[in-house]
Amino acid sequence: VRQGFPEIIFGEGKTAAQIVSIMEAIKSKGDDVLATRVTKEKAKEILKYQPDFIYNETAHILFWKKEQQLPEKSSGYIAIVCAGTSDLRVAEEAAATAEFLGSEVRRIYDVGVAGIHRLLDNAEEIRNATVSVVVAGMEGALPSVVGGLVSRPVIAVPTSIGYGANFQGLSALLAMLNSCASGVSVVNIDNGFGGAYNAVMIDRMAGSEKAED
Amino acid sequence: VRQGFPEIIFGEGKTAAQIVSIMEAIKSKGDDVLATRVTKEKAKEILKYQPDFIYNETAHILFWKKEQQLPEKSSGYIAIVCAGTSDLRVAEEAAATAEFLGSEVRRIYDVGVAGIHRLLDNAEEIRNATVSVVVAGMEGALPSVVGGLVSRPVIAVPTSIGYGANFQGLSALLAMLNSCASGVSVVNIDNGFGGAYNAVMIDRMAGSEKAED
Amino acid sequence: VRQGFPEIIFGEGKTAAQIVSIMEAIKSKGDDVLATRVTKEKAKEILKYQPDFIYNETAHILFWKKEQQLPEKSSGYIAIVCAGTSDLRVAEEAAATAEFLGSEVRRIYDVGVAGIHRLLDNAEEIRNATVSVVVAGMEGALPSVVGGLVSRPVIAVPTSIGYGANFQGLSALLAMLNSCASGVSVVNIDNGFGGAYNAVMIDRMAGSEKAED
Amino acid sequence: VRQGFPEIIFGEGKTAAQIVSIMEAIKSKGDDVLATRVTKEKAKEILKYQPDFIYNETAHILFWKKEQQLPEKSSGYIAIVCAGTSDLRVAEEAAATAEFLGSEVRRIYDVGVAGIHRLLDNAEEIRNATVSVVVAGMEGALPSVVGGLVSRPVIAVPTSIGYGANFQGLSALLAMLNSCASGVSVVNIDNGFGGAYNAVMIDRMAGSEKAED
Amino acid sequence: VRQGFPEIIFGEGKTAAQIVSIMEAIKSKGDDVLATRVTKEKAKEILKYQPDFIYNETAHILFWKKEQQLPEKSSGYIAIVCAGTSDLRVAEEAAATAEFLGSEVRRIYDVGVAGIHRLLDNAEEIRNATVSVVVAGMEGALPSVVGGLVSRPVIAVPTSIGYGANFQGLSALLAMLNSCASGVSVVNIDNGFGGAYNAVMIDRMAGSEKAED
Amino acid sequence: VRQGFPEIIFGEGKTAAQIVSIMEAIKSKGDDVLATRVTKEKAKEILKYQPDFIYNETAHILFWKKEQQLPEKSSGYIAIVCAGTSDLRVAEEAAATAEFLGSEVRRIYDVGVAGIHRLLDNAEEIRNATVSVVVAGMEGALPSVVGGLVSRPVIAVPTSIGYGANFQGLSALLAMLNSCASGVSVVNIDNGFGGAYNAVMIDRMAGSEKAED
Amino acid sequence: VRQGFPEIIFGEGKTAAQIVSIMEAIKSKGDDVLATRVTKEKAKEILKYQPDFIYNETAHILFWKKEQQLPEKSSGYIAIVCAGTSDLRVAEEAAATAEFLGSEVRRIYDVGVAGIHRLLDNAEEIRNATVSVVVAGMEGALPSVVGGLVSRPVIAVPTSIGYGANFQGLSALLAMLNSCASGVSVVNIDNGFGGAYNAVMIDRMAGSEKAED
Amino acid sequence: VRQGFPEIIFGEGKTAAQIVSIMEAIKSKGDDVLATRVTKEKAKEILKYQPDFIYNETAHILFWKKEQQLPEKSSGYIAIVCAGTSDLRVAEEAAATAEFLGSEVRRIYDVGVAGIHRLLDNAEEIRNATVSVVVAGMEGALPSVVGGLVSRPVIAVPTSIGYGANFQGLSALLAMLNSCASGVSVVNIDNGFGGAYNAVMIDRMAGSEKAED
Ligand SMILES: Nc1ncnc2c1ncn2[C@@H]1O[C@H](COP(=O)(O)O)[C@@H](O)[C@H]1O
Ligand SMILES: Nc1ncnc2c1ncn2[C@@H]1O[C@H](COP(=O)(O)O)[C@@H](O)[C@H]1O
Ligand SMILES: Nc1ncnc2c1ncn2[C@@H]1O[C@H](COP(=O)(O)O)[C@@H](O)[C@H]1O
Ligand SMILES: Nc1ncnc2c1ncn2[C@@H]1O[C@H](COP(=O)(O)O)[C@@H](O)[C@H]1O
Ligand SMILES: [Mg+2]
Ligand SMILES: [Mg+2]
Ligand SMILES: [Mg+2]
Ligand SMILES: [Mg+2]
Ligand SMILES: [Mg+2]
Ligand SMILES: [Mg+2]
Ligand SMILES: [Mg+2]
Ligand SMILES: [Mg+2]
Repeated sequence: VRQGFPEIIFGEGKTAAQIVSIMEAIKSKGDDVLATRVTKEKAKEILKYQPDFIYNETAHILFWKKEQQLPEKSSGYIAIVCAGTSDLRVAEEAAATAEFLGSEVRRIYDVGVAGIHRLLDNAEEIRNATVSVVVAGMEGALPSVVGGLVSRPVIAVPTSIGYGANFQGLSALLAMLNSCASGVSVVNIDNGFGGAYNAVMIDRMAGSEKAED
Repeated sequence: VRQGFPEIIFGEGKTAAQIVSIMEAIKSKGDDVLATRVTKEKAKEILKYQPDFIYNETAHILFWKKEQQLPEKSSGYIAIVCAGTSDLRVAEEAAATAEFLGSEVRRIYDVGVAGIHRLLDNAEEIRNATVSVVVAGMEGALPSVVGGLVSRPVIAVPTSIGYGANFQGLSALLAMLNSCASGVSVVNIDNGFGGAYNAVMIDRMAGSEKAED
Repeated sequence: VRQGFPEIIFGEGKTAAQIVSIMEAIKSKGDDVLATRVTKEKAKEILKYQPDFIYNETAHILFWKKEQQLPEKSSGYIAIVCAGTSDLRVAEEAAATAEFLGSEVRRIYDVGVAGIHRLLDNAEEIRNATVSVVVAGMEGALPSVVGGLVSRPVIAVPTSIGYGANFQGLSALLAMLNSCASGVSVVNIDNGFGGAYNAVMIDRMAGSEKAED
Repeated sequence: VRQGFPEIIFGEGKTAAQIVSIMEAIKSKGDDVLATRVTKEKAKEILKYQPDFIYNETAHILFWKKEQQLPEKSSGYIAIVCAGTSDLRVAEEAAATAEFLGSEVRRIYDVGVAGIHRLLDNAEEIRNATVSVVVAGMEGALPSVVGGLVSRPVIAVPTSIGYGANFQGLSALLAMLNSCASGVSVVNIDNGFGGAYNAVMIDRMAGSEKAED
Repeated sequence: VRQGFPEIIFGEGKTAAQIVSIMEAIKSKGDDVLATRVTKEKAKEILKYQPDFIYNETAHILFWKKEQQLPEKSSGYIAIVCAGTSDLRVAEEAAATAEFLGSEVRRIYDVGVAGIHRLLDNAEEIRNATVSVVVAGMEGALPSVVGGLVSRPVIAVPTSIGYGANFQGLSALLAMLNSCASGVSVVNIDNGFGGAYNAVMIDRMAGSEKAED
Repeated sequence: VRQGFPEIIFGEGKTAAQIVSIMEAIKSKGDDVLATRVTKEKAKEILKYQPDFIYNETAHILFWKKEQQLPEKSSGYIAIVCAGTSDLRVAEEAAATAEFLGSEVRRIYDVGVAGIHRLLDNAEEIRNATVSVVVAGMEGALPSVVGGLVSRPVIAVPTSIGYGANFQGLSALLAMLNSCASGVSVVNIDNGFGGAYNAVMIDRMAGSEKAED
Repeated sequence: VRQGFPEIIFGEGKTAAQIVSIMEAIKSKGDDVLATRVTKEKAKEILKYQPDFIYNETAHILFWKKEQQLPEKSSGYIAIVCAGTSDLRVAEEAAATAEFLGSEVRRIYDVGVAGIHRLLDNAEEIRNATVSVVVAGMEGALPSVVGGLVSRPVIAVPTSIGYGANFQGLSALLAMLNSCASGVSVVNIDNGFGGAYNAVMIDRMAGSEKAED
Repeated sequence: VRQGFPEIIFGEGKTAAQIVSIMEAIKSKGDDVLATRVTKEKAKEILKYQPDFIYNETAHILFWKKEQQLPEKSSGYIAIVCAGTSDLRVAEEAAATAEFLGSEVRRIYDVGVAGIHRLLDNAEEIRNATVSVVVAGMEGALPSVVGGLVSRPVIAVPTSIGYGANFQGLSALLAMLNSCASGVSVVNIDNGFGGAYNAVMIDRMAGSEKAED
C-alpha cells in the first residue's frame, strides 16, 4: 500500500483545459492524481466538468483520490509549522500534499519567532513528529529555532512573503541555508509541495518503524 | 545506543590550541567528539599532544571515539555519491561524519553526469540506500539524476568547486534548489557535515525499520 | 543555395503594424523573412492582411518563404532536445528557426534528467546529429548529460522556466556555463533563435562534409 | 559630563605609526580617544611607545581614557547579546566601545536561537536593558527573537561569520532587515562600533530618565 | 498611559474584508488599531462599514483611536525628514504611525541633498528632535548629511523610488548601511512604519527625560 | 586520425605530484595528454622528472604528444582573436589547446574594439576561418564586432580581466550573452580550454568539407 | 542667454493633473519647462488643456518654450548615437532634452556594433561633435567603439532593452563602466535626460570656444 | 601643444620589468609617459634604473615628462574633491593624471558629507572649476551634494573603501548612478585615472574658452 507515489502535476503556467485533460487521463487509469498551483478561477472551471475533484482553496491544490484513505492508527505524523496567515498558502500546499500522499499531518500555525512562547507551548507536539516541515518568509528564522527543539529532520521551506530587502524570498532562503541548528535541509522558495514530498518519504520509514514497536 | 548525537566542533577559525582544549574537555567526560575543517597543519600539532585522536586527511576531520563501533549487521546504509576527485573533501566530510555518528556508509565516487553510464552501473547500490547524500560542484546536476533513479530522500550538497560563473558554489546551489526531481533537499555550500547529519537522522529511522524485518 | 541567411525580425516590443510592414518590405524583394516572439494576438491580426504568412503558435514564430525547401537527402540534421512541455516554446523557437534556415531538425522532447532512461533511449539519434540544441530550465542539467553522450557540439539554451531560486533562468544559465562536459557553449536565456542560428552554421559545414561522402 | 562623544578612529587600513600619531595628538589635548580594528600585531607595536594605552584583544580595540569612569549607580544599561564564540570579536567591539563612551554594559553571550532556553533564562536581564545590541552571523535570527521579548529598541549587528550561502554576512544582514519583530534597526555587517554608538545615544536619554526616578 | 503599543496590521496582501474584521475585533475590545499599506480602493470599501475609521490617503494608513490624544506639552518630538514628493508616501507612513503611537511629529519635507541650503535652513529644528526618521530613495544620501548635523539617533528608511541601477531601493539601502555618519541605523526598504516604531520607542525615553527638566 | 579527443587534465587545485602521476599513466599507454592551469612553479618541478613534456608558459599548459603532428595542408583554421596583453593567458590556453587537438590556429591578437581599424585590417583572415574563438575581458564587446564581420560561428570567451564593476568577469560574460550579433555562443569566464574544444569540434567538420574541395 | 537651465520635471509616477499643474506654474512665470517620461495617454489628456505644449511621442517628452530658439550658427553640436529602433525612446529623450536646453543635435541612429561599417561611415560626423551621447542596450558595446574613434567626451547611456541575462540593463551598464576606451563616463540605465544634461553642459563650454575661432 | 594625449600604461598585473620596458620605449621616442597602479615596491625597483622617472607614492603613479609644463596662466582648473584620508589614493590618481595631462588641479580634500560645513566653506572654489572630479567610497553621497552646488559637470568616482554591505564599492557606485543632482556622470570603481581623463577633455574646451576671454 505504502509503495510508490501518485502523480503530481505542477499547475502553474498550464490552462484549465490542460490540467483537466492530464488529470482525467490519470484518473481514467484508476490512479490518484493531484495538481498544485491551481488558482481559484481555474479550479472553478475544472470543477464544472469534474465535480468529484476536490479543491483546497488555501493550498491552491486540486486532487482526485480513489478512496478516502484513513490515517493508519499506529503511525507517526508530520508537523507543518509556520508563523501566521501570510505563509498559509505554502504551508497548506505542504499539508494537503502530505495528506494526499497518505501521511498524517498536524498543523502548528501562528508560532512565529517574535512570539517565542507560543512556539514553546507547541514544542512537545513538534518534537514528537517524525519530521517537521517549517515554512517561513521574511527573516526565515523559524527552522533554526525548531531545529534546536527537535532531534528529527527539519525540512525548511522559505516563502516569498515580505518586501524590500526580502528580494522575493532570498532573505528567508539564505537564512535557512545558514541555519546554525543541525538537521535542517532546504527546498526552493514557496515549494510547499517539495517540503511535503521529502517529509512523506521520511515519515514512511519512521512510520514503519513505529508501527513495529 | 542509537539515541543522541555526540558533540561536533566547527574547526574553521579556531586555533589548534582552542580545538584541542574543547575536544579534551569532552573526551574527559567519556564522550565521543569530532571536529570538522581541521587543516593538516593544525591536526599535526594536535596529534602530538593527543596521539589517540584519529585524523582523516581528505575529510579534514579529527575525532575521538570511545570504542570502535562495529556497523550493525542488519541495518541500512547511506550512499555518498559524487563526481570525482575535486569534490572529494566535501564528500569525505560527509562520509566520515556519518560513520562517526554510527551509520554505515557506501562511497560511490567518480560518477559524474557527463559519464552517465558509470552512474547507472551503480544505480542499484544507490537505490537500496536508505538515503543518499549527493555532493556536486560546477553545474550541480548530479542530485537531479540520482533523485530520478531512487525513491528515497536525497540530501544535496553543493560545493564551491569551479571557477568563473560558478561564483563560489552559487551555480551548484541554485541548480539543486531547482531540481526537477522530487525528494531532493539542500544544505549549505560545502556543508558535507550537514548533509551527513540529516542523512543519519533519516537512516536511524529506516535502520530501525529494516532491523525489524 | 546554402549561402547567406535570410533576415530575421525580433518581434517582441514591436506592434503588429510594425512587424507586418517590415516583413512585407522584405517579401516584396522576393526574400524569405521570419519574425520571432510574435504573440497569438499579433499573429491573428497580421494573418488577416497576409494570409500566406505561416504562424507556428507554439514557437511564437511567423514567417514567409518563397518555396517550400525540401530537406536535402544526404545532409545531416540538428537534434533539438528538451525535457518537456514547459520548455516547448523555446525548443520550438529553435526548431522552427532551424527549419526556416534550411536545416533538417529532429525533435527529441520529453527527455528530462530526472528520467534518464528516456534520454538514453534516444541517445543514438542525438549522437548522430551534426549538432544538438539542448533546451532546459530549472537546474539546467540536460546539456551536461547530452554533452557526455555525444562527440559533436552542444548549444545549450537556458530557459526562464521555474520559480523562486530560479531567478528568471539564472539557475539554468549558470549551470550550463559550468557544465563539466566538454563541447557545450551557451546562448542567452530563452534564446531559442540564437541556439538554432549557431546550430545551422555548424550543420551547414557538416552537411557539406556528409554530402561529399 | 555626559555631553559629546570622544573621537573614535577606524584602525583598518592604517599603519601602527598612523594610528599612534593620531591618537597621541588627541591625547595631548587631554581628550579621550579610541581606535577600532587594531590587530594584535599593530597593538603590540603601539604599546611599546604608549604603555598607558589599553588594548582589548578580543575586541581589537585600543584606547586611552583620562580617568577610569565609574559606572553611575542609578543609570540604565545596554545589553550586548550574541550566540557564541564566533561572533565574539564584533560583540566585544560593541561592548568595549559602549563602555568607553560611558555606558554600563551587560554581556549576554552564548544565547543562540538553536538553544532557545538559554536565551529565555536571560530574558529578564535583556528586558530590563534600556536598549539591546544583538550580534549574529549565519541566519541572523537572534534579533527577531530578542525583539519579541523586549519592548525597548534593538540594534541588530549582522556579522560575516559563516560560509557558502552566507555570502560574507549577506544572509544575516537580509534576515535582520526583514525582521518580523517591531523595534529592530540594523547597522552594517560587522559594525559593532556602530551598534554601540546608536545604543549609547539611546541609553543616555533613558539613563537620564531613570536617574530622575 | 505611555506603556505598551497598540496593535498594528500589515494591510498588504489582505482583502478589505480581512482588514475590517481584524480591526473590528480589536476595536470591540476598546483598543486602538492601525493598518498600514491600505490602498484607497480598500479604504473606501471599509469606510462604508466603519465610517469612524480615519484614512490617511498619502500614508495609505487606516486607523481607529478611542480618543484624540493631545500631544503632551513638555515632551520632545520626532523629526520626519525627506527630500520631496516621491518619498512622501513612506514619510507619511512614518509620520502617521508615530502620531498614532502618541509622539509629536515635525515634518521637514522637501530638503534633498542636491539643495543643501534648504536642509541647513531646517537644521535647528532637526537638531532639537529627540530622534530623526530620515526617508530617502535614489542615492539615499540624506541620512548621512542629517547624521552629521545632529547628535541624536537617526533612523534611516530607504525607499524604492528610482529606476535602473536603483534596483528597487537597493542603492539607497546600501548607501544608508554604509553611512559615514555615526548614529545611523537602518530599517527595510519602504518601511516607514518600522522607522516610526523605533523612533517612538526612543522618543518615549527622551520625552520622559525632558518632562523632568 | 581525426577521431576522438585525447585526455585533458584540469591542473588547478592539483599538486605537481598529482598532475605528473595522472599524465604519466596516460602517456604510458601511448596516449597524448595535456594539462591546463599549470603554474610555472609546478611546471618546473614536473619538468625535472619529465623533460620530454612541453610547457607553454603564457598558456599555463603542459603537454605530451607522441609525434609532432603537421598541420594538414588543405584544412581550414581557427582564428583566436583578442584585444591585447591582458587577455593573453586565456587566448593562449585556447590556442595551445586547439593546436594540441590537431587544428591549425591563427593568432589575431591586439585588436581591441577601442582601436577598430586594427581589427578591420585583420577582417579578411578572421572571415576565412572556419570558426573564431574571441577572448575579451572588461566590456566584452569584441565578439559582437567580430560576429558582425564573419558568417561562421563565434565562440566567445569572457575573461576576468578588469576591476571594480567588472566583478571578476561578470561584465564581459553578460555582454557576450547579450550580443546583438547572431552566431555567438559563450563559455565560462576564463575558459580558454572550452572555447578551443568547441572550436575544434566545428573545425573538424569544416576541415573535412574543405579537404574534399 | 546661455546661462542657467530651465526646470525639468520627471513625469514617471506623476498623474496628468500633477504634471500639468507643475508645468503651468512654471510657464506662468514665463519660464520654459519640460517633462520627461510622459506617456501618450497622459500627454493627450494634458494637451486638451494646454494645446500650446509640444509632445514628442518617441521621446515621451512634453515641453513648453517661450520662443523657438534658433541654433546659433557658429556653435558646435552634440552627436546622439545609437544602434537602432529598440533604443530610440531613450535616444530621443536625450536628443529632445538637449535641443530644449539649446544645443544643436545630430542624430546618428542605426549604427550598431554588429554592423561596424555603418558606424564608420558616420565616424567623421561623430568625431566633429563637441561631445557624444551614446545610447545602447544589450551588450552595451557602442560607447567603447565610439570612444576609440573620437577624442572628445563620450557620455554612455545604458538602456534596459534586452531580455534574459540582460537583467534590465545591467549587462549594458557594467559593459560601459568597464569600457576600455578612455573618455567614457556613464549615467543611469535609460537616463537619456541625464546623458543630454551632461552633454549640454560640455557643449556650452566648447560652443563658446568654437564661437571664438 | 594641447592636442593629443600622451600614452598611459595600466601598471596593475604588469611586472616592474614590463613597466620599465614599455615606458622606456615611449620615452626613447621623446614622448611623455605615465603608468598608474604602480606599487611602491615596483617603483623602487624601476627608479634604480630610471632615476629621472618621478613617483607619486600616494597616487601609485610613475611618470616621465619631457619638460616641466607650467600651468598656463589664464586657463581654468579642475577641482578634485574627496572626503578624507581613505579615498586619497584614488583622488591622487586623478589629480596626478590630470596634472600630467596638462590641466591645473585644485585639491579639495577632507570635505565629507557628514561634515557639510567644511564642504560649504569650499563651495566657491569648487563652483569656479571648469569641471569637478568627486571621489567617494562608502555611501558615495558626495557627488550629489557637489552636483547641487555647481553648474558645471561632475565626474563621480566611486571607491572600494568600506566594508560589509559596501560590497567592494558597489554601494558608492549605485548611489552615484542614482544621483538626484543633474550633471553627474560616473566612471568605474577606483578609476581615478578615468575621472581625470574625462575631466581634462572637458577642461581643455573650457580652458580655450577662458583663454579667449
Ligand atoms: N563543517 C561544518 N559545517 C557546518 N556546521 C558545522 C560543521 N562542523 C560542525 N558544525 C556545527 O557547528 C556547531 C559547533 O560550532 P562551534 O561551537 O563553533 O564549534 C555544531 O552545531 C555543529 O553541529
Ligand atoms: N569599526 C568601525 N566601523 C565603522 N566605523 C567606524 C569604526 N571605527 C570607527 N569608525 C568611524 O570612523 C570614523 C573615523 O574614521 P577615520 O578618520 O578613517 O579614522 C569615525 O566617524 C568613527 O566614528
Ligand atoms: N581550463 C579548463 N577549464 C575547464 N575545464 C577544463 C580545463 N582543463 C581541463 N578541463 C576539463 O576538466 C576535465 C578533467 O578534470 P580533472 O579530472 O579534474 O582533471 C576534463 O573534462 C577537461 O575537459
Ligand atoms: N588606473 C587605470 N584605470 C583604468 N584604465 C587605465 C588606468 N591606467 C591606464 N589605463 C588605460 O589602460 C590602457 C593601457 O593599458 P595597457 O596597454 O594594459 O597598459 C590605456 O587605454 C589607459 O588609458
Ligand atoms: Mg535538531
Ligand atoms: Mg526520487
Ligand atoms: Mg561531448
Ligand atoms: Mg519588541
Ligand atoms: Mg550624528
Ligand atoms: Mg556573424
Ligand atoms: Mg576617445
Ligand atoms: Mg549641478
